[in-house]
Amino acid sequence: HKEDLELAAVYVSDAQHNRNIFFDTEPTAVRLYLLYNHWLLGVLLYFFILVNLLLAVVEQPALVYLPIWACMLVELCCLSVFSGRLVHYAKVIPRDKFWKDPKNICVLIILLLTLVDMIIYGALKATDNYAVRWSRVLRPLLLVNFTEGRQLRRAFRSIRNALPQILSVFLLFIFSILIFSLMALKLFGKRGLKTNDGRPYFTNFLEVVFDLYVLVTTANSPDIMMPAYNASSFFAVFFIIFILINTYIFMSVFLAVVYNNYKKYLKEEVRQLVRTKRHKMVRAFAILQERHEGWEEPVVSHTSWNQLVRLVQSDLSHAHRELLWSVADHHNQGFIGKLAFVQLADLLNIQVIAVKSRPHPLQRWSPALYLSTPSRWLCRAVKHRVFVMIYDVIILVNAVFIGLDEEDPLIGNSEWFFLSLYLLEILLKLYAVEPRAFYSRHNFWNWFDTIIIVSALVATIINTAMTSVGGYSSRQILDIVFTLRVLRLIRVVDSIKRFRVILNTLIKIGPTMLTFAQLIIVVYYIFAMVGMELFHGKLQFFDSESPGKSSCGNPALQDSSFAKMNYCKNNFNNVVSSFILLVELTVVNHGFTAVTHPSARIFFVLFHIIVVIIIINIFVAFVLEAFFVEY
Amino acid sequence: HKEDLELAAVYVSDAQHNRNIFFDTEPTAVRLYLLYNHWLLGVLLYFFILVNLLLAVVEQPALVYLPIWACMLVELCCLSVFSGRLVHYAKVIPRDKFWKDPKNICVLIILLLTLVDMIIYGALKATDNYAVRWSRVLRPLLLVNFTEGRQLRRAFRSIRNALPQILSVFLLFIFSILIFSLMALKLFGKRGLKTNDGRPYFTNFLEVVFDLYVLVTTANSPDIMMPAYNASSFFAVFFIIFILINTYIFMSVFLAVVYNNYKKYLKEEVRQLVRTKRHKMVRAFAILQERHEGWEEPVVSHTSWNQLVRLVQSDLSHAHRELLWSVADHHNQGFIGKLAFVQLADLLNIQVIAVKSRPHPLQRWSPALYLSTPSRWLCRAVKHRVFVMIYDVIILVNAVFIGLDEEDPLIGNSEWFFLSLYLLEILLKLYAVEPRAFYSRHNFWNWFDTIIIVSALVATIINTAMTSVGGYSSRQILDIVFTLRVLRLIRVVDSIKRFRVILNTLIKIGPTMLTFAQLIIVVYYIFAMVGMELFHGKLQFFDSESPGKSSCGNPALQDSSFAKMNYCKNNFNNVVSSFILLVELTVVNHGFTAVTHPSARIFFVLFHIIVVIIIINIFVAFVLEAFFVEY
Ligand code: NA
Repeated sequence: HKEDLELAAVYVSDAQHNRNIFFDTEPTAVRLYLLYNHWLLGVLLYFFILVNLLLAVVEQPALVYLPIWACMLVELCCLSVFSGRLVHYAKVIPRDKFWKDPKNICVLIILLLTLVDMIIYGALKATDNYAVRWSRVLRPLLLVNFTEGRQLRRAFRSIRNALPQILSVFLLFIFSILIFSLMALKLFGKRGLKTNDGRPYFTNFLEVVFDLYVLVTTANSPDIMMPAYNASSFFAVFFIIFILINTYIFMSVFLAVVYNNYKKYLKEEVRQLVRTKRHKMVRAFAILQERHEGWEEPVVSHTSWNQLVRLVQSDLSHAHRELLWSVADHHNQGFIGKLAFVQLADLLNIQVIAVKSRPHPLQRWSPALYLSTPSRWLCRAVKHRVFVMIYDVIILVNAVFIGLDEEDPLIGNSEWFFLSLYLLEILLKLYAVEPRAFYSRHNFWNWFDTIIIVSALVATIINTAMTSVGGYSSRQILDIVFTLRVLRLIRVVDSIKRFRVILNTLIKIGPTMLTFAQLIIVVYYIFAMVGMELFHGKLQFFDSESPGKSSCGNPALQDSSFAKMNYCKNNFNNVVSSFILLVELTVVNHGFTAVTHPSARIFFVLFHIIVVIIIINIFVAFVLEAFFVEY
Repeated sequence: HKEDLELAAVYVSDAQHNRNIFFDTEPTAVRLYLLYNHWLLGVLLYFFILVNLLLAVVEQPALVYLPIWACMLVELCCLSVFSGRLVHYAKVIPRDKFWKDPKNICVLIILLLTLVDMIIYGALKATDNYAVRWSRVLRPLLLVNFTEGRQLRRAFRSIRNALPQILSVFLLFIFSILIFSLMALKLFGKRGLKTNDGRPYFTNFLEVVFDLYVLVTTANSPDIMMPAYNASSFFAVFFIIFILINTYIFMSVFLAVVYNNYKKYLKEEVRQLVRTKRHKMVRAFAILQERHEGWEEPVVSHTSWNQLVRLVQSDLSHAHRELLWSVADHHNQGFIGKLAFVQLADLLNIQVIAVKSRPHPLQRWSPALYLSTPSRWLCRAVKHRVFVMIYDVIILVNAVFIGLDEEDPLIGNSEWFFLSLYLLEILLKLYAVEPRAFYSRHNFWNWFDTIIIVSALVATIINTAMTSVGGYSSRQILDIVFTLRVLRLIRVVDSIKRFRVILNTLIKIGPTMLTFAQLIIVVYYIFAMVGMELFHGKLQFFDSESPGKSSCGNPALQDSSFAKMNYCKNNFNNVVSSFILLVELTVVNHGFTAVTHPSARIFFVLFHIIVVIIIINIFVAFVLEAFFVEY
């Protein structure tokens, strides 16, 4: 009976946390499954995935140099952790299910390919040959394909589902660009116009297509239009219609298609989730069910229900458990049917905010003092609107002081004054409000305040100590102090109601934003790896005045506007600069302008299609949806 | 009785065309009202509004020079037409209603101010003083405030309704920029960094705010980041977070707010429209109603209904009218109640697509020939899928020929071949399909084909004639010929089903796009007028190599990147270049970079806020909504 109860508890726990693994029901497998779900193993897996991804920092082309054997050793370590996790998973679920699941196959193939690549790379490097670590592009896929990456897999599935419709619009969009290119070729090609850097203007069809594609991204606007416009004002009409159709209409249609599919798919996923949850709960019910006299349907008794809940969530208070039972058994029969039982998973997820007002620790320590008239008066004052307004004014005055020159000793010392005022505020609030209530999970701003103020205090003390001892202040610590000082000002927004609504929506989006961050890291990482293999060393960044500065160390860019604008650090020479470059390319794809070889354009066009047309639109769709629901 | 019937007919016609003017019901006023609604007067009004707007072309700073007295004369003429229209409107509706309506007051004030401005301007110019025609910014407002601009007024009302929410987000957005600016000032200001053109980097708070605002528009990305990034890779984090929050999140939130309000407001407007329509129909019913024995409720008899419908829509066939009656009187009682009567306006708007297959004119002319076996076979062949496919292939081959060099005589002559093929296609289709059905209103592509092919034929003939007679071909006509040739290729899209769906949605958006075009013209016109007063003559465009070319004729821009990029023609020297510049500023606000005086920045920031944050978002919202509904 104990094993049955444990199995039922696992089902309920799965339903509660939306896990959809259909594990083996043998007792040993169930125990392994419980271990598999342990949060520590999950954290460990993510840690090693992170280490594996961060290897790019120390691998060739490296930001911090580490010998090849050391990188290989770390990577082998990661691979063995991944293999261990996969074997563990294989032992938990039935064998046939394991081999049917594409994500397991995917992980397995990634592990094997990585191993093969490491061997080849090691051998080639040992014999001083040229070698490419091509399996590095596979690393971020581990993030997607391990069971924990459920949210991320959902995002990728939603993209895959939207692809056919996106493709239709995309083909039409390309057709439109081709038509406009042909027209541009015919209209401008024979006029003998020259671009600003003296090349012939719109004479080669493929060049025209590329230039007009870049115009859609607005990266070369209005440069590409100027030669024609300078020849005749009338030609501006061509470019205006082009931008209207391709930049505004088509990009909006892309957003519409992505948004529509995202919404449709999200609904389907939620339906699937509900179904899985119900399925798990029905299984748990089937284990615990018993017959009750005078009832046709099987039921679950209060006793087994109690045992089950105690197993699933041991930290639940007796009162809370009784409350849940009374909700389920609202006819007070001492047993519940299937329908009431299935709701348990959702009931457990409802956070019962303790309505009981716990007494303040100071009150328990000295009731007479805490409940005395001055003390009560202080508590009332702290909770009063005027108190909030006074501190808003303090924050504004502080903002002015921050803006002034901090080398003036008066301004420099004012920092101590403001810091103590902020500390006083937190202490007063802690006096008036029960600390555990003050720091409860949904009190974002209290957490924010405390963390910022305490860190600012620590950093300011360190900075002052360093200045008074060594007579010098560290630039890094000063940066942190300044940043924290300015961040403190954000708090003023929370006291204005119209802003609070918007801000709360943004804060609520936060967790889902993490899934999005993973998605973009997967895509960026793949592009960074490919970009580093293709372009590393093509550009050099020179810190001081050096002869190579005017060409970024590349003769093809000698006196180009790219070098003149000091863009040389936008290169693929290491993983950090690659990531920063990719962010820049997302914002404005100026990479188009730095191309020294036509075929490299494919890389930038592909990046634009995937990141700007698909990923950014999903992000916008997602912010839109959040605001439609919340606001 | 006749006058009653006429009044009822006016009510029904108003309901049918969604007019919501509550006119005087005196017979003379009704007759004036009928005249007021005449399409010719509407067209005349729009023509004079257009003339009034186009005056900017000939006024100082002029594209085409016209003496001041001529401009004034034309404008006076326009003003008298507008006054006439306003007086006409005043005679149509009750006096108290006229003075209560803000749009009439608005038109009146615009007319008076314009007159005052003209007098002052004339007097100042006559005495050779400096004068500004400030009332020109009011001109586009006439487009909004005349009764005909209902759609446009609705768009402006929707913007006004969204303003409070937009303002909340905007203030938060500005707060975010201020916080980031303060942080940037503290982090980068003391480091002694220099921008690419040697100015100190991030040392003045207002400069920082402006630079970061421009970064939101991505117009100065990545230039503004490079000095900090070159100093330390770590600082890129600041800019990445800035762009994430301000460019991506805030801009999406703006879209969400605009979209939400747009949708909400649209629903309210539709409800209002339905209410007005019902109200008009109830009034018409009240006029025609009579008592029928055995019925408590008043009714309208078949006879008066028939007379009414004949007055409202005289071109309706007897059969169609009987069909409508049978729909209304579905119990066949010979009279209808209020409920059935009110539906009439909507019934009249339903386009009954004639199901009856009218015989082909050729069939009537010679049935034996048209219905003979070869003729039937030809008709079947033309309607066959293979026929469409053959022409798709022809179009593709044509595309290749267009891409090739047209100076080759073979290619040049091939045009005639393709033109005759296309003509043949249209003739064959006209043979197979009844011409009136072929050119019915919803057959967009048939109209498109015919217009393009016939114009191409005419242009090609003119071109050939000119070449063979004068031995020279006009560049303008060649441009038209080339454009038409390429446009012909678009047709291929219609034969692919997945594209047709998207394209049909875009075509359906068309008419509403016109309202949007008016909206943008109103805003652009106002900015163009202000811009011309503020900035005209600041930049000069030099066609050939001249000493002023490197500075656009402005010493402040000597050797600036603006002049070097050949942007000199982007100026406010006349209304056409102003409009083109404003379109460019909408796409990428590079105007930010050409500012010679800090206060001029206000103009560009204001333009960005109004056009990009509000107007473009409404456009996107509108395309999104169309696609959500249609696709
Ligand atoms: Na842009």
